[in-house]
Amino acid sequence: MIKKLVIIGVGLIGGSLARALKQAGEVREVIGVGRHRDHLQQAIDLGVIDKMEMSLPQATRDADMIVVATPVGELAAIFKQIAPALSANAILTDVGSVKGSVVTAAQTALGQNFSAYVPGHPLAGAEKSGVLASVADLFRGRRVILTPVNETRAMAVEQVRAMWQAVGAEVKLMSAAEHDAILAATSHLPHVLAYALMDMLVRLRADGSLFGFTAGGFRDFSRIASSDPVIWRDICLANRTALMTALSHYKNNLDTLMRAIEMGDGETLLATFMRAKQARDTSVGLDRDDGEID
Amino acid sequence: MIKKLVIIGVGLIGGSLARALKQAGEVREVIGVGRHRDHLQQAIDLGVIDKMEMSLPQATRDADMIVVATPVGELAAIFKQIAPALSANAILTDVGSVKGSVVTAAQTALGQNFSAYVPGHPLAGAEKSGVLASVADLFRGRRVILTPVNETRAMAVEQVRAMWQAVGAEVKLMSAAEHDAILAATSHLPHVLAYALMDMLVRLRADGSLFGFTAGGFRDFSRIASSDPVIWRDICLANRTALMTALSHYKNNLDTLMRAIEMGDGETLLATFMRAKQARDTSVGLDRDDGEID
Repeated sequence: MIKKLVIIGVGLIGGSLARALKQAGEVREVIGVGRHRDHLQQAIDLGVIDKMEMSLPQATRDADMIVVATPVGELAAIFKQIAPALSANAILTDVGSVKGSVVTAAQTALGQNFSAYVPGHPLAGAEKSGVLASVADLFRGRRVILTPVNETRAMAVEQVRAMWQAVGAEVKLMSAAEHDAILAATSHLPHVLAYALMDMLVRLRADGSLFGFTAGGFRDFSRIASSDPVIWRDICLANRTALMTALSHYKNNLDTLMRAIEMGDGETLLATFMRAKQARDTSVGLDRDDGEID
Repeated sequence: MIKKLVIIGVGLIGGSLARALKQAGEVREVIGVGRHRDHLQQAIDLGVIDKMEMSLPQATRDADMIVVATPVGELAAIFKQIAPALSANAILTDVGSVKGSVVTAAQTALGQNFSAYVPGHPLAGAEKSGVLASVADLFRGRRVILTPVNETRAMAVEQVRAMWQAVGAEVKLMSAAEHDAILAATSHLPHVLAYALMDMLVRLRADGSLFGFTAGGFRDFSRIASSDPVIWRDICLANRTALMTALSHYKNNLDTLMRAIEMGDGETLLATFMRAKQARDTSVGLDRDDGEID
């Protein structure tokens, strides 16, 4: 049971975690921290948080669990503000989509309190954002990756693990580098690809008339291009190295396909498409409804 | 009212059209033609077609509407087989995702009967295929593009238009070149991009372990990589020129984004992502449920 939970950034992820912990009876009091008073008031009205607090040191005093759920680009500054006010038994975690650069920033900012920080990332997002989109079952059946380092206190890891398990998530531990390489390929790269496609279509016909000639496949493919631009700018910058590696791999693959199309090499196209389809059919989303026809 | 409708290729599209026309009471008899007797028997058992026929000339005799709904790569051969047996008042159309090269093939194969051919393309597909996936409302609210040429009989165009309107589709006329350029950008390109991503992930980790770390965004983005590899090989080859143009545009856009990521140019990233998001939010799929959070 968490006695005093502080959520910094009460949006989709922070709000959903608060809802889920309340529903599970795993938290006594939830304090929301943010820059916008009206957003926090909305979170109170929705029953997502119990109290709001504009001052970080004030909010984190006596907290036993602090979850930073802001865009990745704000994490370093928040760690710096929190550091002096962290109580001895407080545990600090985040939900950032990038871990390597965030862990480095945390180490610099937190000093001797660094051992209380458990780097975390729930693999549950949406192209929606904001507390209005938050739901209590967002993490049910989802994976949460924790990337503790040598300095991280084992008990802190266990408590963050228990928090995520309490809301139905499956927790995996790995290194920050491994996390960043995997997520660059499976999440950050697809977002960049989808943004690039939408931007290209706007540039081709500025009147948007191209979008009148799309079907369900396009709607699904492009959905992630509706994601929050600030969040994704931050992720691209914070995971620059791994993302550039993934983009290079991708461009090589795309070049191979382009050569095959240009040469009329149907054999290579068919082999590639079959390999891709088999991977998609056997590996992705088998646990979720995937039968939509459109 | 169509008296004798012949569907060549009773899969998702052909089967759904048969179902829809029957449900609308717009057809008296549906003959299914295909290479596999058991598939056609399944279509009969499902009530999608009334009779099967293995011989094309036999099937098309006395037909007043012939719809070719096979992969694009088979159209030329089928037009050649149909040509000698086409009755004077028969109308021929297709559902191919590429129009330019298909119209050329039809002109060569059909000779003086070319005026009875109305090139068509319903913008409704799915990553599912086969008659089992067919549904009567597949075309409701969807666009169907017809690309008649100078030689095409006006009455033939009107009858094909009426057929699609009867199943709830909105019919648009344009040139084959316009169609192929638009679809290359909005449909063929995204399919190639999704196939390339899945193939890249398989190559990076052959054990498929990467797919354990994906969220809803990835599932949506990659769904079109489950599409039929033969259909999409054919489309890539048949629309090679327009697709290569779209791919070049795309690569230029991607290169710009990669440069911004590499240089840490957050301003360019944010501006691009915002433009892309705005296009996605205002232009795509507003007529369909799009509120899924995952």
